[in-house]
Amino acid sequence: MSKAIILLSGGLDSATCLAIASKQGHECYTISFDYGQKCALEIKHAKQISKSMNAKRHETVKISIGNLVSSALTSKSIDVPKYSNSGEIPTTYVPARNTIFLSIALGWAEVLNADSIYIGVSNVDYSGYPDCRPEFISAFQNLIRLATKSGVDNKSIKLETPIISLNKAETIKLGNSIGVDYSLTISCYSVDNEGRACGVCDSCALRRKGFLEAFLPDPTRYI
Amino acid sequence: MSKAIILLSGGLDSATCLAIASKQGHECYTISFDYGQKCALEIKHAKQISKSMNAKRHETVKISIGNLVSSALTSKSIDVPKYSNSGEIPTTYVPARNTIFLSIALGWAEVLNADSIYIGVSNVDYSGYPDCRPEFISAFQNLIRLATKSGVDNKSIKLETPIISLNKAETIKLGNSIGVDYSLTISCYSVDNEGRACGVCDSCALRRKGFLEAFLPDPTRYI
Repeated sequence: MSKAIILLSGGLDSATCLAIASKQGHECYTISFDYGQKCALEIKHAKQISKSMNAKRHETVKISIGNLVSSALTSKSIDVPKYSNSGEIPTTYVPARNTIFLSIALGWAEVLNADSIYIGVSNVDYSGYPDCRPEFISAFQNLIRLATKSGVDNKSIKLETPIISLNKAETIKLGNSIGVDYSLTISCYSVDNEGRACGVCDSCALRRKGFLEAFLPDPTRYI
Repeated sequence: MSKAIILLSGGLDSATCLAIASKQGHECYTISFDYGQKCALEIKHAKQISKSMNAKRHETVKISIGNLVSSALTSKSIDVPKYSNSGEIPTTYVPARNTIFLSIALGWAEVLNADSIYIGVSNVDYSGYPDCRPEFISAFQNLIRLATKSGVDNKSIKLETPIISLNKAETIKLGNSIGVDYSLTISCYSVDNEGRACGVCDSCALRRKGFLEAFLPDPTRYI
């Protein structure tokens, strides 16, 4: 049985990726990151999602980059902004985040002898982060070949982005059709103490719109 | 004054890179990684080197990948091998290590608005790791452009590899000419409790040979 690593944030997109990887017949290994984000709750959700979809193993990797990278997702002094479609990269951008996450997943993939890494980036409904674009994914795929012992041995690890061309509604419809329980997922950048979503940040706005357009009930608990 | 990030392991190569970056007029920010390596002493040396060369700031980033990546440098169950020039990638290889380190340095570089990242890889006297080759460096340089906000803004961060074409003796001669105090550096993969180098691992073998060929005294304390 081929092995796949799935980057799991606890959100809607990565949960859908896990379901897809599982449906495609992989033995699934999920990985989450504690990088000093305000919403530490998302790691708890990632664990629950991983368990509910029978992943073989879940790992949380701590990275102490809180001192180095500032973002509205990590710094108390920067408020999470409301949704805007200005085209500007928002303050929720965490510098080099996907590069860091994929690098660590790559190390694990080599050790496990996994043949793929799944990441839930979308180039349609997203916040304009540079490291969600198809050209970034292609560049990382090229790097994988050169960075690894398996690449030297001509055994490539494939970077899979199954929802890159889907908008949020399409992702939700696909996930719903293969059994994703979206009530376990959390997308909000600014959850309150009781785990309720703010409803107004970028991530909530895209999620709400997605469920509306998919004509499916939104199981999110909003404030 | 332009800012540079220097990956600092505490070893001979990265110390030389710091001296070069400083000599080239950069304000230097140094970064070390605690990734569960057996030789935690190297981080102490990195701090001392950083201070001795008047770097602006030194940061140590912890990454809890001990559970995920196995290597003779991190696993108690794998002995550090003696020097061999078999051409095989040795068990001291840590999967995706340089990719992980460079990714985190990249995040910091974006935040600091640094214009370069220095890494002390050499393609001449090295242990055959895939992520020390010029083609890996080129692939990462390409990734930087696509992974970052600064790349989107057409402000590139340059990956600098000033010793990539130098053998160990040439590196030592260069460093010596610009004031590197090699007695502060530690290269051994298998240091004893008193901080003495084993003298027989890959890293010691290359270092010893380097000082011999450079006709310079080797300040290393060997067992």
